[in-house]
Amino acid sequence: MKKLFAEFFGTYWLVFGGCGSAVFAAGYPTLGIGFAGVALAFGLTVLTMAYAVGHISGGHFNPAVSFGLWAGGRFSAKDLLPYIAAQCVGAITAAGTLYTIASGKAGFVIDNTKAGAFASNGFGAFSPDGYSFQAAFIAEFVLTLFFLLVILGATDKFANGRFAGIAIGLALTLIHLISIPITNTSVNPARSLSQAIFVGGTPLTQVWVFWAAPILGAITAGFIYKSLLQNHTQDHTN
Amino acid sequence: MKKLFAEFFGTYWLVFGGCGSAVFAAGYPTLGIGFAGVALAFGLTVLTMAYAVGHISGGHFNPAVSFGLWAGGRFSAKDLLPYIAAQCVGAITAAGTLYTIASGKAGFVIDNTKAGAFASNGFGAFSPDGYSFQAAFIAEFVLTLFFLLVILGATDKFANGRFAGIAIGLALTLIHLISIPITNTSVNPARSLSQAIFVGGTPLTQVWVFWAAPILGAITAGFIYKSLLQNHTQDHTN
Amino acid sequence: MKKLFAEFFGTYWLVFGGCGSAVFAAGYPTLGIGFAGVALAFGLTVLTMAYAVGHISGGHFNPAVSFGLWAGGRFSAKDLLPYIAAQCVGAITAAGTLYTIASGKAGFVIDNTKAGAFASNGFGAFSPDGYSFQAAFIAEFVLTLFFLLVILGATDKFANGRFAGIAIGLALTLIHLISIPITNTSVNPARSLSQAIFVGGTPLTQVWVFWAAPILGAITAGFIYKSLLQNHTQDHTN
Amino acid sequence: MKKLFAEFFGTYWLVFGGCGSAVFAAGYPTLGIGFAGVALAFGLTVLTMAYAVGHISGGHFNPAVSFGLWAGGRFSAKDLLPYIAAQCVGAITAAGTLYTIASGKAGFVIDNTKAGAFASNGFGAFSPDGYSFQAAFIAEFVLTLFFLLVILGATDKFANGRFAGIAIGLALTLIHLISIPITNTSVNPARSLSQAIFVGGTPLTQVWVFWAAPILGAITAGFIYKSLLQNHTQDHTN
Repeated sequence: MKKLFAEFFGTYWLVFGGCGSAVFAAGYPTLGIGFAGVALAFGLTVLTMAYAVGHISGGHFNPAVSFGLWAGGRFSAKDLLPYIAAQCVGAITAAGTLYTIASGKAGFVIDNTKAGAFASNGFGAFSPDGYSFQAAFIAEFVLTLFFLLVILGATDKFANGRFAGIAIGLALTLIHLISIPITNTSVNPARSLSQAIFVGGTPLTQVWVFWAAPILGAITAGFIYKSLLQNHTQDHTN
Repeated sequence: MKKLFAEFFGTYWLVFGGCGSAVFAAGYPTLGIGFAGVALAFGLTVLTMAYAVGHISGGHFNPAVSFGLWAGGRFSAKDLLPYIAAQCVGAITAAGTLYTIASGKAGFVIDNTKAGAFASNGFGAFSPDGYSFQAAFIAEFVLTLFFLLVILGATDKFANGRFAGIAIGLALTLIHLISIPITNTSVNPARSLSQAIFVGGTPLTQVWVFWAAPILGAITAGFIYKSLLQNHTQDHTN
Repeated sequence: MKKLFAEFFGTYWLVFGGCGSAVFAAGYPTLGIGFAGVALAFGLTVLTMAYAVGHISGGHFNPAVSFGLWAGGRFSAKDLLPYIAAQCVGAITAAGTLYTIASGKAGFVIDNTKAGAFASNGFGAFSPDGYSFQAAFIAEFVLTLFFLLVILGATDKFANGRFAGIAIGLALTLIHLISIPITNTSVNPARSLSQAIFVGGTPLTQVWVFWAAPILGAITAGFIYKSLLQNHTQDHTN
Repeated sequence: MKKLFAEFFGTYWLVFGGCGSAVFAAGYPTLGIGFAGVALAFGLTVLTMAYAVGHISGGHFNPAVSFGLWAGGRFSAKDLLPYIAAQCVGAITAAGTLYTIASGKAGFVIDNTKAGAFASNGFGAFSPDGYSFQAAFIAEFVLTLFFLLVILGATDKFANGRFAGIAIGLALTLIHLISIPITNTSVNPARSLSQAIFVGGTPLTQVWVFWAAPILGAITAGFIYKSLLQNHTQDHTN
């Protein structure tokens, strides 16, 4: 149960911090933090919570990460559903808090005809820079695949594991530095779902892509890591 | 006594560096550091001082942190008052130094009718982006709550504690990336008080909010951490 | 063989993340990440992969690094060719993926008459800020030389080696902060080759410079480190 | 002798990277790295070299640091002169390399009537934002004082010393985030001297301030740390 609370709070923080920085601070005139600031914010949510509650739940905060760790033989199938449920509840609760705070500014409204509204993900006309469905799918697939390679590698028993929180958090920053213009960056189905629920419209009908592509990428990474990179000869736990 | 000197110097550095970067460098034409630079500066004050004097005083530099650690069972009630006094004296001394340096530029004056003047915190007309009292209160409460969850988690005896200074410092960077437009970001009553004293006017009358919301958030985090996240079975110190 | 897969995936990530952030996100109107964001992205590709697969292959991801480690007595000559081949294949595969994604935006075309097109390196008219061949060569030589000094020093047996991934990754960020205007920053022959292949034209005819200067700088660093900085008296492995 | 080579290369890198990023990349149109990028670059020169050669020389790269460590009882007086000489030679050599590279852009000329030309430090009309002599002196004194408190604290035997390179490097980033508009930020006499030599004119006549204020601040920090913060009861080495 502590594990599920840890996943709830961690995913809340990921959405509140990452999407919140996008909603409140990215486009502030002249002084705004831009995409680079949002990228840093997303990464720091994971870095900070990895050191805070990673020792409790493993620090997934993302259904794709849970799937990828399962595919890599590091996470049990029976824990997938409760972890993902806790992540989604945390994400949606955070989005609700963001909505409440955002409503405290006069004139706030979510315009769900605009790409990236309320930090939602999308492709085609809902991609911030107009990237197609195919480009969006490939980007989310590749980025989540590499995100999981970093996670599986940095937490490998032969790795320098105490630094995993830094490597994994900053991998998420890197992913956002690359791809905000393409899909507004998901690689995290819970984060996509929470924003889409509040936005509705096309972003909500597109949200399945941000479940399918990241989870497929993550599972692919699990198999790649196990078959091509992992040292099995000295490894008795898998 | 060394502890109180450590808190004095640490909080001085937090205000001098965080508020100083906002006063001197954020809005410099074209090359200015913007909100992202100020966010980084605040976080680095804590990161650097955590490694410098954390081994002396624990590295609070913030009355809300002291309250939160007390609520989490990590800090003794009898030390609250001296710590908070040292923090406030450090913050006010730093604000005085900033005032002296800022006065060395021709035409310097604090215009206390403008939001964020001299790095002060505020809401309503004194919020940088016009957020209401309610939005400001919720934001400060939630952000300080999570700041303390990171602190309590990262310094837990089961955590990877040598990295706590990085996680906690960068959590403060993250908090500023999210919320400078909302309240100019406090989560630290000493930092809010020091700037309000030099600004006066409405920011000074609003400063109670930046004591109440952060301290309430921090205390809530202490109870959440103890009841929902902490491992008590193997933990004999609390 | 695992080592070559590690170099393949690591160099893929370096090009996909570093060049990808330049292609997709650097120049996005108002919110783009600029040269500083690209610099951070390049560094984070190395930081993240160093902790992910550094324990497998040593984490070179760069032919100049392999040459420099050989010159410094840390890497065997017989492994040079397979490592460099794996790096180049990874880089070119990544550039192909970037090309596919970039093509998903209407109107995408690589204009190989413009400096820095598709994140290519160049000098003279193909330097982003118009630097001469001589300036470009010196910059690439000096920057790679110091990159290797950082690598050789941070992984020295007397150094604080667990932090090497952070130091080396952030050294690459620093190198980009300095020199994107000069050559669009190479210090990595594989990264230069992969982009030049897709760009063609003058950038492809200039690519030899981004093999010669980095490799010469790296080899020079190997000899400097061995002769001037390394502690030989207690060092029985070289 | 290895120690002096380490100080030479470290200070070369500090000037080449920090001042180089300012000269080449800060003001590039639209995509330039600005003051925040320069701040990051300065900090990363120290962070990277601290992990690369810190185990050889201690990683000062700055005459004020050497003086402060001497005042704090960590460095021997007889090593002051050779260290400072190696630092100044490294800094001036780096400035020469920067000059050579910068000359490779058509139309390059150092205009020594403008504040901050060729990354020089200054006050009054030579302060980037017009700060007076008094403001500049106080800023440099306070910033170097705290820089040394971070250095002395983070390398204290009771501290978490393996992280000192991160804390010290990022302290230099923080210092630049605060004070580039005030003096173009020195806190390092060698770095100020090297640029002033190439600029001449008023910046060269002002350079004594960037020796006096940092060294006074550093020595003050040494005495503050020893008398107010250091744990003497269990400390038998001082």
